[in-house]
Formats: sequence, structure tokens, C-alpha cells
Amino acid sequence: MLHDNLGVNEQGHLTIGGVDTLALAEKYGTPLYVMDEDKLRSNCRIYTSAFAKYMPSGSMPLFASKSLCCKRIYSVIDSEGMGTDLVSPGELYTASAAGFELQKAFFHGNNKTDADIEYAVDSGVGFFIIDNREEADKLNSYAASKGIKQKALLRLTPGIDPHTHAKISTGKVDSKFGTAIETGQAEQFIAYVLGLSNIDLRGYHCHIGSQIFDIAPFTDAADIMLDFAGFINKKYGYMCEYLNLGGGFGVRYVESDPDIDIDANIKAVSEHISGRCAANAIPVPKILMEPGRSIVADAGLTLYTVGSVKEITGFKNYVSIDGAMTDHPRSALHQSPYTVLNAGRADVRPDYVCTVAGRCCESGDLIQEDVKIVKPARGDVIAVLVTGAYNHAMAMTYNKVPRPAMVFLKDGKDSLAVRRETYADLMALDV
Amino acid sequence: MLHDNLGVNEQGHLTIGGVDTLALAEKYGTPLYVMDEDKLRSNCRIYTSAFAKYMPSGSMPLFASKSLCCKRIYSVIDSEGMGTDLVSPGELYTASAAGFELQKAFFHGNNKTDADIEYAVDSGVGFFIIDNREEADKLNSYAASKGIKQKALLRLTPGIDPHTHAKISTGKVDSKFGTAIETGQAEQFIAYVLGLSNIDLRGYHCHIGSQIFDIAPFTDAADIMLDFAGFINKKYGYMCEYLNLGGGFGVRYVESDPDIDIDANIKAVSEHISGRCAANAIPVPKILMEPGRSIVADAGLTLYTVGSVKEITGFKNYVSIDGAMTDHPRSALHQSPYTVLNAGRADVRPDYVCTVAGRCCESGDLIQEDVKIVKPARGDVIAVLVTGAYNHAMAMTYNKVPRPAMVFLKDGKDSLAVRRETYADLMALDV
Repeated sequence: MLHDNLGVNEQGHLTIGGVDTLALAEKYGTPLYVMDEDKLRSNCRIYTSAFAKYMPSGSMPLFASKSLCCKRIYSVIDSEGMGTDLVSPGELYTASAAGFELQKAFFHGNNKTDADIEYAVDSGVGFFIIDNREEADKLNSYAASKGIKQKALLRLTPGIDPHTHAKISTGKVDSKFGTAIETGQAEQFIAYVLGLSNIDLRGYHCHIGSQIFDIAPFTDAADIMLDFAGFINKKYGYMCEYLNLGGGFGVRYVESDPDIDIDANIKAVSEHISGRCAANAIPVPKILMEPGRSIVADAGLTLYTVGSVKEITGFKNYVSIDGAMTDHPRSALHQSPYTVLNAGRADVRPDYVCTVAGRCCESGDLIQEDVKIVKPARGDVIAVLVTGAYNHAMAMTYNKVPRPAMVFLKDGKDSLAVRRETYADLMALDV
Repeated sequence: MLHDNLGVNEQGHLTIGGVDTLALAEKYGTPLYVMDEDKLRSNCRIYTSAFAKYMPSGSMPLFASKSLCCKRIYSVIDSEGMGTDLVSPGELYTASAAGFELQKAFFHGNNKTDADIEYAVDSGVGFFIIDNREEADKLNSYAASKGIKQKALLRLTPGIDPHTHAKISTGKVDSKFGTAIETGQAEQFIAYVLGLSNIDLRGYHCHIGSQIFDIAPFTDAADIMLDFAGFINKKYGYMCEYLNLGGGFGVRYVESDPDIDIDANIKAVSEHISGRCAANAIPVPKILMEPGRSIVADAGLTLYTVGSVKEITGFKNYVSIDGAMTDHPRSALHQSPYTVLNAGRADVRPDYVCTVAGRCCESGDLIQEDVKIVKPARGDVIAVLVTGAYNHAMAMTYNKVPRPAMVFLKDGKDSLAVRRETYADLMALDV
């Protein structure tokens, strides 16, 4: 099996976290998001334990909320001792409603409105990650009006291309995010922010992309950031307390993806950072990272029910399911590969090549093309694996298809975390 | 201006339907969807009047709900004498709640679940558009249990490639939709459905794609469908009452898109159909079409507020706005071109080349790359034109960004049709 939390039981049914997926589909209906909380916690611990072992005191992994934002996730993250990064006031609202300790929250965004800035300051968010000068000015004046100094990092672009999908690489100089080191604009920006009396600048943030299987993008980024930190330290006498390297490590979606040792990678990144700090004669800053995908992705799967099997003579076979790009947008957006199984016959060798199609009235609504599964019939349950990240988070209601429920599994017990959307819910905003 | 409902007032502000866009942004906040109901009705009348003039009695344009599905739209469509096509029970629920006459509704979908079929029959939907055999069997047995004969069309694939974007071309043989004529499977399917005693087969449906500027795809499809109808008539003595050609005509998103004469095109299609029916010695069927985009797209625009203007020395300029791919998914999904304006300075020649970036924490969240606008500053209002189709419909809540409000304009008066989503709404499904 692709991940160690997946299995096959005596009936030949796919299990996750030891729970029969067909029983879950029967109990909750489909489409259904399933999250294995035990796996999720174990993923958190890989990061927290590696950070405790290898990184300077005060370092912390921050859960990237954008990968999965629901109330339930924050209690898990909080109890595992992680911080979080929040990219919008909506995420902040959700984390806050879930009782998450906001001092451990880092507030992102390339476009924070005046209202967003006021809301986040008033909520007591720990750190702003300031993207641009307009934001710095507004934050400074609002913090002044409240009589506080707001802790903040500055988002910088180190100019790294992590060789991943262009749409998810964000560390290049030509980016809507942050301020570029290479052009000299980052230096000007730091000098400017250091002059703002109600901003307490604590360090730098960079983000080199997502779904990275190699340490090189992290160490390359760290080199640029630490050399720059050394330069700023010399020239301005300002040494950053924090360096946030953004992102996390990649996740196996399909068998051909590598299986990486995150602990060993974090150790290597840490050692590399120590060396570079010594070379720059600067203290080692507290390190932050922002894993999201590698925390939640492989803890999740999605269950669907088959509606039709269509064999076009001389062309393809299409298996239509009761979900769609609405609950699984990454295939349509990024043409991302996924592993698909006939969940009721997980003990049989798959030999039926087909395209699994969603129910939306759009030709591009294909969940996965040309996969090999055990041939299904109407009523069979299909599992799409590794859907814990960016599926619930990016879900839409195109074609007025309701968004699925989400169930959490812990110690073999299931409980509803997000209820299924109703047709009435879909019309709730109509006047 | 790109469309005749757009203008510039004495203050240099962009107007739509004669209403000042900056006044709308001020009154309702941004991001804001604006729909010009007068333009919408005039678009409906282009189709209804052309159908009345040129098409056989009983023919009708059906509004494609998937392009914009909200309560308000159905009262407009209904009062303009159009039918509708519905691609899901959620759309059916919305149309029904809006009081739309469901006998004029055609129920689509490549994967109708048992529950969907029962719900649509129970709702009294006029016509099913049957996609596959599993659906036909379930529909037949459920109609039998209710003691009715359900009117239906069969979805067939004529094998036309309309030379538009691959993701929105649906008439090819290799499609998740319908049954192929070319492979002989359509004939078998018709023979099968004619033998089902609780299905009242009334004709055929095909859909050759979207955003079509030429009549050739329609006339090519009509040729194939009518030749096939003639063949079935001869062999089985079954002549279709309806031929649904799907789709509608293309829409101008940018100046370089052609401006087409829909009335003349419908006339030409009608004449072509008459000739082909004569050649096949069959009566001219009632014709249906399914315009969506060309009804709503150019009646709409979206208003945003600028948060930052970032000039990366030697690279690009980025203008960040308070909306995102969440309310405007087509640029990220289809890389679709749009026209962008600085709404407060619509009287000034645009000369500032920039990329308009959304607020989502994703590099691919660019509303439009390298457009020329009047250079804005934080607080300026930006208008993205021709957003009435597939924007509200495809909106998502990624990054927990709330979906915009939608205001309708009629006779110079504005009224709220869809209220703005709140942070609490975004958490409504969390248990």
C-alpha cells in the first residue's frame, strides 16, 4: 500500500486507520472525505520531534492552514505543539473559533486589506508576515493607534526556482509575493520597516514552493537568506531572531513518487544552517517551517460511488462517480496525479484501464485519466488516496454540487468533523 | 467600450447599465459581482426573437444554469420565455425554489445517482437528458413505480471537435458524456430505450462545446444528428420530436474577440437544418439550444479594491486586489483572457503594464497577466469585465476567502441578489 495507514481487511475492503472504508461510505454516504487523525498526529510528530532534536530552541513547525482549514484540525495541531500559518482573516476566524492559541499564529497574505489588518491586530495574532510597503504603513499606524508594537516578519523572495510545478513555486524573484533580495528592494524595505516605531521586526520569511522532495531548495534558500541576514546585520546592526523557510516536504501521491525521510532532511537542513551562520559570523536564528501537505495529505482519502461505466468502442472507458472537480479541484487545476482504487475489491489485482470522471457538466472534470482499477459497476465505492490536502480546502459548489462531509478517525472510532452541505445551504446567500 | 452597456460618466468613472461602479463599490463593498439585468434581458431576447422568427414552432432556447445559478436569475429567464437546462439536483432545487416552471426544464448530468433521479422525477422536471444505460434503467424503474412515463432526450456524441479549448469541447467521440454515433453504440442505446415502457423518448441532445464564434460546429453537428435521425426513422420508425444542439454562441471577453450577429447565425443554422431535413425526407424537429455564457457573461463585471502595487526592478509590476481565484476561477483553470480597467479613471488612456494578482496564497492566483491599465494605488477600484458567466458559479472558498455579494441593476436601480459570505458562514458546516 502507498502509505502505512492503509490496509485490506478480510472482506477485501480497503481500510484506513484500521476502519473499513465501505462501512464509512454506508454510514455517512458519499462523496466523503476521511481523515485518519492518528496518521495526522504521527505526521505532526515527525516535524515536532525533528525540530526539538535538531533546531535551535524556540524553533517551531507551523501548520499551513491553507492545506486544510476546519475547526477540528486546530485542536489536533495545538495539542501536538505546532504553531500555524494563516493566510486570511477567514482562516484566522476559524483558528480562533477552534480555540487555537493565536500567539503561535503567523498571519500571511500578499494583500491584506485595512479591515484584515485591524481584525488580526484586534484578535491578538502573534506575528504578521508583512508582504509590502502599503501593508507595513497601515499596520504601523493601526498598531500605533492601539498603543502596541506588533511583532512581524518580512516576506522576502530569495530567487529560488524549486523545479516544481510553476503554479506552486513562489520563491522566484518574479512573484506577486514579498520583496526581492536580488534587486536590492528587500534591503530598502527592511531599512524602511526598521524605522517604523510600532512594528517589532523579528525576522524574515521566504517560501520556495510546495511538494519538494529534496533538501537543496531549502538549503539554497537558507544560504541566500542567511548571507543576506549577515549583510543586514553588518550594515544596519539588525540581526533577525527568526528565519521562516516556508513550505514543507513533498508527499507521495502515487507509487512513483519518492518516499522521503523528513527527520533526516530536517537534520541536514539544520546542520547546513549552522555552518552557514558560522561562515557569516551570525548567531543561528530560530527556524520556522510551514508544512501543510505533508501533515494532512496522506492522512486523507475520498470515497465516491460509481454511477456508470461507459466503454467507448475503440476509445476509452469512463467510470463516472458522484463527486467532481468540486470536491477534488487539483486534477482540473494542476493535472495532479492520484492513486485510485475500487475500495470493495482492494485484494484483487487491478487490470481495468479507465478514466475516472466527475459529475460536473464540464469535459475537464476528470478525477484521474487512464488509471488501472478493478472494474467497477454502478454502486461500487471508489477511493481516491492522499486527498487530505487542498481538497476540502479548495472545494467549490460549481453546478450546485454540495460539498462532502468529512469524518475523522481516531483509535478506530469515527466522528463527523464537517457535515455534508445541503441544497438549502447552497442557496443560503441568495436574497 | 467592449460592450454597449458600459460607459464612462462625467467623473471619469466606469458605468454599467448607467450606474457608477465606484458608487456600487462604496455602497456594497468589494469584491462585488455586478449584473446588468437590462443587458441580461436583451441577451435573452436575441435568442427568443431569433427562435420565434426562424425556428419551428415549439423550439426554445434553454438557459444553461451552470453559467450562473442563483435564485434571481430564474425569474428573469422565466419572464423572458426561456426554458432552462439543469445539470444537478442542486440547480433543480434552486430553480424550483425560485418558482421556475419545471416543465420547461431539462435535467442533465453524466452521473445521476438514484437519489437524483428520484428527486427530479418527484419534482416534476419536464425532460431528462439521459446520459447512459444505468441511468435509463433506474429512471425507467422509478417512473414505473410512480405510474408515469418520463419524457426524455438521449445525449449523443456526434464526433465534432469545435476547435475550442480542449477542456470545454464535449462533442467528441472520446467523452465522458453521452453515447457515440460513430461507434454504433448510439443506435443500440436508442433501440434499448425505445423498449423501456416508462420512458417517453422525445429526441436527441448533443453538445459540441462552448465559446463558439462560428456556425460551422452547429451545422456540422446538425448534419450528423439529422442524418442519424433519418437513419433511425427508416430503420426503427422512430422520428425525434426534439433536436437539442446544446451550447450557445461565443462572447467577447477582450477587444480581439469577434463580435458576432447571433440573430443572423440562428437564421443560418435554421435554414441549414431545413435543407438537411428535406434531404433526409424527415420533418424538421423542434430545435433547442442551451446558451448560458452568451446570456449572462457580458451582463456582468466584478469590482475589486487594490491593496498594493509592487514594481520588481527589471521584472514585472504586480497589482494585488482583494479578490482572488476564489471568486474568479477561470483564469487559474483555463488561463482565460479578460479585460481589466481602473474603474475610477476610465476616461484616461491606460499605459501601465501589470499583472493583476489575487489575494490567495498561491502563485497561480493571477487574475490577468500583463494587462494595460491606468496605474492604480491602494484603495483604487479595479473592474474586471465580462464576468457574469462561470465566476459566481465556480466560486470557491479556498484560503477561507468569503464569496462576494452580487448586485443586480435594473432601470438604473441596484438591488442585492446574493449577500456577501461571512466568516461565520465559512464555518457553518464545521461540527
